[in-house]
Amino acid sequence: MVIDVLRATTTISWALKNGADSIQVFADLELLKESANKWHADERLLLGERGGKKIEGFDLGNSPLSVTNEVVNGKRLFMSTTNGTKSLQKVQHVKHLFAMGLPNRRAVAEKIISLKAENILILGSGWEGSYSLEDSLAAGALASYLETNCDFEVKIINDELQAALALWNFWKNDILKCLKTATHGKRLTSIGDYEEDFKCCSELDCLDIVPAQVERGVIRAS
Amino acid sequence: MVIDVLRATTTISWALKNGADSIQVFADLELLKESANKWHADERLLLGERGGKKIEGFDLGNSPLSVTNEVVNGKRLFMSTTNGTKSLQKVQHVKHLFAMGLPNRRAVAEKIISLKAENILILGSGWEGSYSLEDSLAAGALASYLETNCDFEVKIINDELQAALALWNFWKNDILKCLKTATHGKRLTSIGDYEEDFKCCSELDCLDIVPAQVERGVIRAS
Repeated sequence: MVIDVLRATTTISWALKNGADSIQVFADLELLKESANKWHADERLLLGERGGKKIEGFDLGNSPLSVTNEVVNGKRLFMSTTNGTKSLQKVQHVKHLFAMGLPNRRAVAEKIISLKAENILILGSGWEGSYSLEDSLAAGALASYLETNCDFEVKIINDELQAALALWNFWKNDILKCLKTATHGKRLTSIGDYEEDFKCCSELDCLDIVPAQVERGVIRAS
Repeated sequence: MVIDVLRATTTISWALKNGADSIQVFADLELLKESANKWHADERLLLGERGGKKIEGFDLGNSPLSVTNEVVNGKRLFMSTTNGTKSLQKVQHVKHLFAMGLPNRRAVAEKIISLKAENILILGSGWEGSYSLEDSLAAGALASYLETNCDFEVKIINDELQAALALWNFWKNDILKCLKTATHGKRLTSIGDYEEDFKCCSELDCLDIVPAQVERGVIRAS
């Protein structure tokens, strides 16, 4: 499970909801361009972000609002972001790999329950290798849902997830405020007007989309 | 500020409360023995713990219950523990270095307020380099006290401490349970009866002791 609440996994979920064919994730930009060039020009989009901002020459930045049906329908998105796509690449060898934001928390949790997964690794993307409040919040949100809705026992086996659960219980009634309190939220606020992005990324359980890796680096709705 | 709730900084605080002259902390055991040997035999005690258990040949293990007035009064404690004393050594170059557990949270916070410190680094000792729930809880307890009681503005500048604050707000009415839920608490429970240690380590604001480094590696009540 890879989480990047602000904003990669939220963008991925919305893109799939809005009819994108698939999303191929890259840490490396040269590799991204190379792969995209092999694709039909009218069936591809380049989506890239560094430091919160769109990469020059790319079609789209990393905003869930930009991946509307008109824009993404039927297309493959070649995507690279500061943190989220790096995380997705780092764990691409696992058996089942999902991407989750807050909007599709329930959908992903139900998928996990249906798989009767024995071990779940939750990877918060954070910011350039460090801890982030909003990804931990979402990890807690997922754990909380599983604890309540599984008919088998759920064991929280490390202190990080125990803390994430507490974080969720503390902030769950004001998710938007939590996202804006987080350092990454403050960073976004300082570089532009991201009000609608914040709202979109904080909306819980509104999307029935489970983004799953179908081949290495390629994500589809499952 | 170094925190090791279970149990080094709690033990240090209680030892000073009970009349210990000073505590000298060591990461390295050979160095500890060398230094202790230069001290008067009847004015020294060796206190050591690895993996929760007393080190063989040492006078005391790392329990706040063992450092009674009868045992420690007037003595220097030569101390090494799995995590807490390592943390104290790691940051021994800072201008003001304090050790805090939950029992002396208020005392240490008041000291910080009186110093009008501009930057406070809170170091949770954790477990062998990894995150721990109980030390984060105490970091949150300290931040919470400072936010409420400072007459100058307190800025929480990273997500780790924001999360610690949420952790504190979630668990503050059942600190004992939090300590037992933590992986280190479970580890202690699995190796012996630490019920009284848990109670002692979870008692908030009962000690007016501020353990401060007075020379490199040497801690006295201030």
